[in-house]
Amino acid sequence: MNVPKVVDHAARRAEIADALWRVIRRDGIGAASVRTVAAESGWSTGALRHYFSTQSELLAFATAMLIERTTSRIRGMAQRLETLDDLIRLLEEVVPLDANRLADSEVWLAMVAASRTDPSLRPLTEEAHRGLRKLSADVVMLIDEMPGTPSLDRTLEADRLHALLDGLALHGTLYPKQLPRTRIRQALRSHVERLASSG
Amino acid sequence: MNVPKVVDHAARRAEIADALWRVIRRDGIGAASVRTVAAESGWSTGALRHYFSTQSELLAFATAMLIERTTSRIRGMAQRLETLDDLIRLLEEVVPLDANRLADSEVWLAMVAASRTDPSLRPLTEEAHRGLRKLSADVVMLIDEMPGTPSLDRTLEADRLHALLDGLALHGTLYPKQLPRTRIRQALRSHVERLASSG
Repeated sequence: MNVPKVVDHAARRAEIADALWRVIRRDGIGAASVRTVAAESGWSTGALRHYFSTQSELLAFATAMLIERTTSRIRGMAQRLETLDDLIRLLEEVVPLDANRLADSEVWLAMVAASRTDPSLRPLTEEAHRGLRKLSADVVMLIDEMPGTPSLDRTLEADRLHALLDGLALHGTLYPKQLPRTRIRQALRSHVERLASSG
Repeated sequence: MNVPKVVDHAARRAEIADALWRVIRRDGIGAASVRTVAAESGWSTGALRHYFSTQSELLAFATAMLIERTTSRIRGMAQRLETLDDLIRLLEEVVPLDANRLADSEVWLAMVAASRTDPSLRPLTEEAHRGLRKLSADVVMLIDEMPGTPSLDRTLEADRLHALLDGLALHGTLYPKQLPRTRIRQALRSHVERLASSG
């Protein structure tokens, strides 16, 4: 068996990740399989099996991508977090406000669902969970440090913000008609503004 | 085939529901099957198949039970909803604060997960979703009508409370060590108190 060079491997991984993402965005996570991603990418199913061969591995691959993408978007924004609007924009990255973030939320939800019966998926689900917890705690800390904010109970507020984010992601993904994007945006903005004004 | 009398049918249904609930409480929803519930109830698997014969039907039966149980608990409390504490106690009925409510949340989460790939389960999942939405909206309305509360944006606050409840249920069920029950309780109380004080 030929082991691909590291540089080829990284490029091919990115290409396959893009194809997987297009399938999920267009047809949902339920439609993503080794076969459909092979068709989308132009690679053979044999080449794909180097990256994932079962539905669990595909889901793990998609979740690793989701964590990478989200982490890199958030890291890019973390350079200048000065105003409340900056923080709101940061949090908007993790709720389903456009097709990309809806695909993110769908992958996350499919992963949460699958990891209840497939323990091999647990570590990645927990990594995503800890990432969102840290984001919530960081935002609460930054608000607490802003001049003019009354002192916050940071643990309690991180619990509350984290629950709100996952609740909005859950409802926006499962019931997009009952909870349109404008209302997700309003709920998030209002929550953060009130954190900063009176706690 | 003998059709059981209506009264026997209702009594047997309750008995089987109790046995199913004991299995879920003790071993989790993953352990519930026609076979394990038959062993727990003392009925034959043949008798059980009158109520559910597949894993999907068992999950639907458990969810119908969960909706009945929760609705009846909430209806019982709705007789006297005068203080903020009454409303907090009402909301505490739908988050995993003891073994029974944790079992409720586990069934709900298993149902949400399964209904993503099994459309036959969707109507019951949506019924549970609408029930929690209505509870959130009712609590917001009652707070808004209390003397001394600043006027609330009822839709926005129902969105926020509903997301908080499902987020806390999700975290309390999947990560009980990271989010102990005292903190679920605090997050909920604090959210409702602030709704009533400054919106």
